[in-house]
Amino acid sequence: MSKMLQTAVVGVTGYAGAELARLLLHHPRLQGTPPVFAGRVDAGDGARGGVPIAEIHPQLAGSHTSGLKLEPFSWELLVNRGVEVLFLATPHEQSREWVPEALARGLRVIDLSGAWRLNDAANRAIYNFEDEGADLAVTIQAQAVYGLPELHRAQIANARLVANPGCYATSIILALRPLVAAGVIDLDHGIVADSKSGVSGAGKAPTPKTHFMHAADNLSAYGVFTHRHTGELLEQIGLSKSQIVFTPHLLPIPRGILSTIYVRFSSTQTADTISFIYRDFFAASPMVRLHAKALPQIQHSVHTNYADIGFQLAPDGQRCVIVSCLDNLLKGASSQAVQNLNVMQGWREAEGLE
Amino acid sequence: MSKMLQTAVVGVTGYAGAELARLLLHHPRLQGTPPVFAGRVDAGDGARGGVPIAEIHPQLAGSHTSGLKLEPFSWELLVNRGVEVLFLATPHEQSREWVPEALARGLRVIDLSGAWRLNDAANRAIYNFEDEGADLAVTIQAQAVYGLPELHRAQIANARLVANPGCYATSIILALRPLVAAGVIDLDHGIVADSKSGVSGAGKAPTPKTHFMHAADNLSAYGVFTHRHTGELLEQIGLSKSQIVFTPHLLPIPRGILSTIYVRFSSTQTADTISFIYRDFFAASPMVRLHAKALPQIQHSVHTNYADIGFQLAPDGQRCVIVSCLDNLLKGASSQAVQNLNVMQGWREAEGLE
Amino acid sequence: MSKMLQTAVVGVTGYAGAELARLLLHHPRLQGTPPVFAGRVDAGDGARGGVPIAEIHPQLAGSHTSGLKLEPFSWELLVNRGVEVLFLATPHEQSREWVPEALARGLRVIDLSGAWRLNDAANRAIYNFEDEGADLAVTIQAQAVYGLPELHRAQIANARLVANPGCYATSIILALRPLVAAGVIDLDHGIVADSKSGVSGAGKAPTPKTHFMHAADNLSAYGVFTHRHTGELLEQIGLSKSQIVFTPHLLPIPRGILSTIYVRFSSTQTADTISFIYRDFFAASPMVRLHAKALPQIQHSVHTNYADIGFQLAPDGQRCVIVSCLDNLLKGASSQAVQNLNVMQGWREAEGLE
Amino acid sequence: MSKMLQTAVVGVTGYAGAELARLLLHHPRLQGTPPVFAGRVDAGDGARGGVPIAEIHPQLAGSHTSGLKLEPFSWELLVNRGVEVLFLATPHEQSREWVPEALARGLRVIDLSGAWRLNDAANRAIYNFEDEGADLAVTIQAQAVYGLPELHRAQIANARLVANPGCYATSIILALRPLVAAGVIDLDHGIVADSKSGVSGAGKAPTPKTHFMHAADNLSAYGVFTHRHTGELLEQIGLSKSQIVFTPHLLPIPRGILSTIYVRFSSTQTADTISFIYRDFFAASPMVRLHAKALPQIQHSVHTNYADIGFQLAPDGQRCVIVSCLDNLLKGASSQAVQNLNVMQGWREAEGLE
Repeated sequence: MSKMLQTAVVGVTGYAGAELARLLLHHPRLQGTPPVFAGRVDAGDGARGGVPIAEIHPQLAGSHTSGLKLEPFSWELLVNRGVEVLFLATPHEQSREWVPEALARGLRVIDLSGAWRLNDAANRAIYNFEDEGADLAVTIQAQAVYGLPELHRAQIANARLVANPGCYATSIILALRPLVAAGVIDLDHGIVADSKSGVSGAGKAPTPKTHFMHAADNLSAYGVFTHRHTGELLEQIGLSKSQIVFTPHLLPIPRGILSTIYVRFSSTQTADTISFIYRDFFAASPMVRLHAKALPQIQHSVHTNYADIGFQLAPDGQRCVIVSCLDNLLKGASSQAVQNLNVMQGWREAEGLE
Repeated sequence: MSKMLQTAVVGVTGYAGAELARLLLHHPRLQGTPPVFAGRVDAGDGARGGVPIAEIHPQLAGSHTSGLKLEPFSWELLVNRGVEVLFLATPHEQSREWVPEALARGLRVIDLSGAWRLNDAANRAIYNFEDEGADLAVTIQAQAVYGLPELHRAQIANARLVANPGCYATSIILALRPLVAAGVIDLDHGIVADSKSGVSGAGKAPTPKTHFMHAADNLSAYGVFTHRHTGELLEQIGLSKSQIVFTPHLLPIPRGILSTIYVRFSSTQTADTISFIYRDFFAASPMVRLHAKALPQIQHSVHTNYADIGFQLAPDGQRCVIVSCLDNLLKGASSQAVQNLNVMQGWREAEGLE
Repeated sequence: MSKMLQTAVVGVTGYAGAELARLLLHHPRLQGTPPVFAGRVDAGDGARGGVPIAEIHPQLAGSHTSGLKLEPFSWELLVNRGVEVLFLATPHEQSREWVPEALARGLRVIDLSGAWRLNDAANRAIYNFEDEGADLAVTIQAQAVYGLPELHRAQIANARLVANPGCYATSIILALRPLVAAGVIDLDHGIVADSKSGVSGAGKAPTPKTHFMHAADNLSAYGVFTHRHTGELLEQIGLSKSQIVFTPHLLPIPRGILSTIYVRFSSTQTADTISFIYRDFFAASPMVRLHAKALPQIQHSVHTNYADIGFQLAPDGQRCVIVSCLDNLLKGASSQAVQNLNVMQGWREAEGLE
Repeated sequence: MSKMLQTAVVGVTGYAGAELARLLLHHPRLQGTPPVFAGRVDAGDGARGGVPIAEIHPQLAGSHTSGLKLEPFSWELLVNRGVEVLFLATPHEQSREWVPEALARGLRVIDLSGAWRLNDAANRAIYNFEDEGADLAVTIQAQAVYGLPELHRAQIANARLVANPGCYATSIILALRPLVAAGVIDLDHGIVADSKSGVSGAGKAPTPKTHFMHAADNLSAYGVFTHRHTGELLEQIGLSKSQIVFTPHLLPIPRGILSTIYVRFSSTQTADTISFIYRDFFAASPMVRLHAKALPQIQHSVHTNYADIGFQLAPDGQRCVIVSCLDNLLKGASSQAVQNLNVMQGWREAEGLE
């Protein structure tokens, strides 16, 4: 039997990190070779080296995690353990700093942050990267592949750096790209993407926004006209800034995203045509589920690795409401990262994800 | 001291009924004259005659409800008790049937159902009223006033039948009517109203939709292109069917509505102009709160009798996102009914509602 | 018309502070004389002087709060405004420090913290007060009255310092004191108080415990055998440490406490006898509701100012389960404070609380 | 390769049925041989024959459920498909009726209802079985094994009828049986088991109790002194009726049970001794996780197949609070059923459950 692939997860202490750990530990191709787990420097995890994973994430306790510990991050650690693929579940500042070093050391990287997702400097401006415009950053960005396998399968297969998409962006791009590619949407009319996300999307840091008393029994819009996933929408769907309005909302639930998307078609369409466009586009995409009979709901998507898409066409055949759901920690983050791993390794795309 | 007004609430056993009872019992103008409380015939409340209100709604228990009981509905009951104003918190079928009799008996009626809200037969079609087109129904509809005081204060003052608005409709009409009246919106571009409501809006009947396991940790769109509040939007805002898309969603919270509304202006506007339009429109409206610094959120509106409105203008000055919140059981139902009562009686509009 | 009482609330920025502000602003005896509102020094509220109350607590916005602002705390502020009664909704360290000064300046104080609730130094040890044992502290503690009107009405009436009880303590003491006073409980057998509280009880500071992702969809026990409300139970019910086990739990809801209390009677009892003991004990207590037909539930107590008590006796007539509910921010904090104010002023005890 | 085992699930349309389907479809020993899925006659599922599983439980949609349909139940169906092990996720009345036939036809049965859990007629009385005392029922009860592998592994291995335990009962028995077996608890002092369960435990039928508006933002005790899981506690722990008080509560969460259990030891104990007793008892039990550092919480148990147990000993060494958590749909129902299947088949007990 051939040697198993050695992976590492940096930032395993967060919510997406926990799910990524779970998925990798159960992945059929990685049995017997658990990932190297490291914490987040910025979250003070340095001091937690040696803490059992089962103590950090009690839900993961079991025979398969017995003996697994959080290790203090260092490049030597990765080298000594023979790591080949590195997952970064770290803030974008940290990913921005570490990816160059990781690539220089020959690692393949799947970065879950927003550090390397955007090709257009104008779109990147919102992140205020310190190294913006520096030669090294430009070179590395040129190598980065946007990690949405449904759009970029072939490039991901050969990528050294995969920029795993944003959770909101995944839900909206998957819903819109097929229709835009088919040319049926009247883009000048403008698209509205009204998205709602569970609180885990806001991260593990205790803040006034993530306080139970703010999030529970509430709904609030935020980042109106300014959310930083907007750049991903423009670049990946192929839109100009005036062609889409994206409004995220904070839902009083732990996980899950639902995007309600409003488009107008250039000419009258039938539901069958629209269904066909979607089925055709996703014919080879095992992690997208198309819903014909009923619109998707958050509770059918959470705790699954799928994106769920459905739509309702107005009687006029021109106006259409598309509903797109996923689990922001899974298809919106960690299971998408594993899907990218599968593609990069030439494994079956859905392996370990069904 | 003059005789107090005698009111009655039919359908007090529901969620809006409970809130209406609470508001009327605390209303300064009604002290010492509690409403006559009757149940809902359709909900089998007939058998519950004599049951204390404090047993039906334990949260209302206290010295002020001591001795108050649910009474079996009959017209004689209302006559004998000298009822002058009748609140119907009943299903629209029942309101459709009872209102003619109530008016014939000289009562003034505030109906919380959808029975008499729509002037246009095409819009009413969705209700499938049995008496649609009958002379009596036509006559009564002609007398009905849509009970949104912010729009129809003068007519409500003299109305014998007030059709209390739908909860979704209230949140959207209040946000849009000022801008449409001012002529700033590009109506042909189309408006999107993406609304989210807590579960109490779905009523007290146990159904698969209101089951905790369906509603909790979930979000679902429903009634896409078909929700029956659409007619109220068209008639009260002054829109044609193709000018608005309205999508309601079921939120995993007990109460509260937030509508996110997307418009495009015909020409470039400033935030100051839009603020001025709203302030001017609602200058004499005590139950609308305009938010300049931050968008409204559901948790600041629930358990209050206000509608809360705020907006964010895009840098282009043309696209605008309006957020409108209210408590669906209060400004979306029962406190709006009390506000209508105040207007009908010539009392201060906010009396008992601050 | 006589001059209205001038009150002040320090710490109005917290959850209990918001409710206290609401209650005082609507109190019939205080109309036209709004409290002086000050922030919390420890929460950095000093810098927020001049911020409108309606901005700090948007749910309170309305004509009655128009013009009301947060004022930077100083003793001069209180003197200049003629404050007679001071509410402290501050952490216990701050209350410990400020109460001596307030009393010295002739103010009557209602302190919502745990600073002055405990007579027994052994019970106070858990707070680790810096001034423990100092002469001034001893003198002041001797003047403090435990602010549970149902137990200490007469002393509260004359108190200069009222120590408003803990929320858990209120729910348990009200359930147990009548039975202990009547001598029916077998104390040596031991009592179990299993309490569950909503998240607002944990305060407004964002912490890992108050993060939505920790509290939502969860239940956790904490402070087992060590919670600092235990001392209040011992002193107010009259128990030794070995006679009660108290376990608090964190519920995934914003507000409300339910305590399930297990006792054994010394001899066989009937439900009628137990009911009579409760009715007799609370005969003059308007803010306690006794439930004979069904056990109380959290949702009937929240947003009310009442404590709700019910019980179920085992067929053996000896074992009894008592259920006690209240809103931790109201009867567990702010409405209890107002109830104490009423008693101190000789007003009707339930005034402004029905 | 040997023929795979053919299983069937009757009642797959419920919550536990959905989880059972998921577990069996992913079970390594059952790959390629999906269970036969049948609905519930009492829930009107007869008419749903032919409906895809992915439509009934959209979260299960995927390539592995493609083509799987709900089949109308009949004995012929089971015979024709060569079913050897039958899971009944049906109401107890139906299980009571069907088990005799199933056994007569040579099937091995794992029944998730309460139909065959109780040996003592006095304990069974609460179910009011129509066939109580009939010869056949007596004979079958005598063959039934209580399906808690941690207690009855050997008998389950050979059982033809396994009575899968109640969810509450599992959480309490696992926490108490080790200590009772070790003789450390003072039984005459009495035990208190205060349990809290998510709403899925109340079943899929829409009722006033399962309505979102009743369950959300609430906590309520029910079945005080009368819950039908009590008999399981008495029989499996070995207690008399007066030795335990069990109070279930309805938590405002979809799934999960936490039991807080209060015991007094006959003599002073150390935490080490108690830990040792638990570790020793569960040494060969892979589905129980013992927590030494922190008490278990519901959110670490849900969506896992484990029971989690921890405890806190009072400083007096005599009073002890035990906290026991599990997912009521998994270790409290379906994963326990699969664990029983593993034991019955001689497979590794945790197979398919890690």
